[in-house]
Amino acid sequence: MSLLVVGSVAFDSLETPFGKVERTLGGAATYFSVAASFFTHVNLVGVVGDDFTERDEEIFRGRRIDIKGLERAPGKTFFWAGRYGTDPNERVTLATELNVFAAFRPKLPESFRSSKNVFLANIDPKLQKSVLEQISGKPRMVALDTMNYWIERTPAELREILKHTHVLVINDAETRMLSNEHNLLRAARHIFKLGPRTLIIKRGEHGAMMVDSRGAFCVPAYPLEEVHDPTGAGDSFAGGFMGYLAASRTMNDAVLRRAMVYGSVLGSFAVERFGLERLRKLKRREIDARARHFGELTRFRL
Amino acid sequence: MSLLVVGSVAFDSLETPFGKVERTLGGAATYFSVAASFFTHVNLVGVVGDDFTERDEEIFRGRRIDIKGLERAPGKTFFWAGRYGTDPNERVTLATELNVFAAFRPKLPESFRSSKNVFLANIDPKLQKSVLEQISGKPRMVALDTMNYWIERTPAELREILKHTHVLVINDAETRMLSNEHNLLRAARHIFKLGPRTLIIKRGEHGAMMVDSRGAFCVPAYPLEEVHDPTGAGDSFAGGFMGYLAASRTMNDAVLRRAMVYGSVLGSFAVERFGLERLRKLKRREIDARARHFGELTRFRL
Repeated sequence: MSLLVVGSVAFDSLETPFGKVERTLGGAATYFSVAASFFTHVNLVGVVGDDFTERDEEIFRGRRIDIKGLERAPGKTFFWAGRYGTDPNERVTLATELNVFAAFRPKLPESFRSSKNVFLANIDPKLQKSVLEQISGKPRMVALDTMNYWIERTPAELREILKHTHVLVINDAETRMLSNEHNLLRAARHIFKLGPRTLIIKRGEHGAMMVDSRGAFCVPAYPLEEVHDPTGAGDSFAGGFMGYLAASRTMNDAVLRRAMVYGSVLGSFAVERFGLERLRKLKRREIDARARHFGELTRFRL
Repeated sequence: MSLLVVGSVAFDSLETPFGKVERTLGGAATYFSVAASFFTHVNLVGVVGDDFTERDEEIFRGRRIDIKGLERAPGKTFFWAGRYGTDPNERVTLATELNVFAAFRPKLPESFRSSKNVFLANIDPKLQKSVLEQISGKPRMVALDTMNYWIERTPAELREILKHTHVLVINDAETRMLSNEHNLLRAARHIFKLGPRTLIIKRGEHGAMMVDSRGAFCVPAYPLEEVHDPTGAGDSFAGGFMGYLAASRTMNDAVLRRAMVYGSVLGSFAVERFGLERLRKLKRREIDARARHFGELTRFRL
């Protein structure tokens, strides 16, 4: 079933204990769509500047990604620079240049408006709302990411879009900030009152937890000896998760759990190399092998 | 099979967001032995002062815990006071009074010397060594806990006892400190060179991970809405883990995984109330029900 993603396409300069790259392709919508395209067809909406070349566009070619919605605007593409410490959770932002992203007003091509599954990556909640308004009919599933900036600065707008959100995909710090609750189960109960019926908490090296009315489901992070670049882990997780769901006819607990595992698999591959390097070369059979490995990592019999 | 534990028996004064208790019974050997006694017979070696009353001793009665090795010395029992924040990992030590524990020299009663399974709780590595020297024959399994203090102050003595340790049970910060490695898989590889063939990393609210030559196994922490008092979680985990192992005839990967789950179950119950309050009233059927719940919490099918 069709899957729409709206979010950033960017250039990133990254520094980690394993090296340094300058202006490599990144952005939430990029990681998301490449990850999701292993499972389903993806409709991408975003904006790039005139520094975005044919070569940059190559990442989307030969994949099930429709970039009809990737707008080209005069100016420069969104740029982010950051540095990670030995602890991959220690991230310092060195530069954020919004550039053409500052004036981004998502416009869905006609053929995208019937998308059944929607992922609203981390952008201004007002813009997230405008995307939903362009969708014809009732989408089967709306999932949303957000961040501390919007939780603090635009709480009313965020609450408005949350009313229309089925699955909220955020990290543990954001969960606590949004709910004003340290305990994640109580935080989930609070968030359910705002709209979402499923909360997915991304916990970096500690894995991910899904909470809904049936209870909780936990997946560990895949143990890796070297995390070369944590950038894009959360967006790749969301891409694997939503891609798998969009490709499934049914959406019961078993399917959601499997989607959590595929999300974790995609997140774990993303961090093995800088930028999109690893996802670019990834094969479907590697995804399935690692999913089975997640089984070995967690399975026990009483 | 017989299980020996050597460690502290203490009084704790605890303050958490859920309340305050003064001089409640605690100590690693106490939590460990109560947790382990649900699975097997436990031989306890420790020391208390003359402020330790008949009433305090009640915790051990009616359980499979032999306190022949609980020495009484003139003076006061080990006392610890601490405060936890909203984040259960934020712990402030307000007082540590070693008292009779300062001169503790573990002496194994004759009948304890043939113990087949040994847990050396977190005490001076020299004393841990002296315990092993009193064991007759080769124990089936030696597990050990330690802390930053010994890792920094007595590295040579710690390395000596690690040579005789099969299973090292420590937290993530201790794992990193002992190995000088941030990455836990690399840290495990380093630690295997020191002696242990199995490393169990306790990660508090993030669960526990076991690493050995076969790979890794992860168990999440049981999601609780209220963590009343995190004290003793790690020792209760170790008690459930070792108790289950000691009660098992075989010791293969499936048994070790199950032991990890039972350890997590006991740790999760311990934190539900202050001090030993919850473990005191715990029933075996509650343990088994929660172990099954751990299954629901982690199970998926591809």
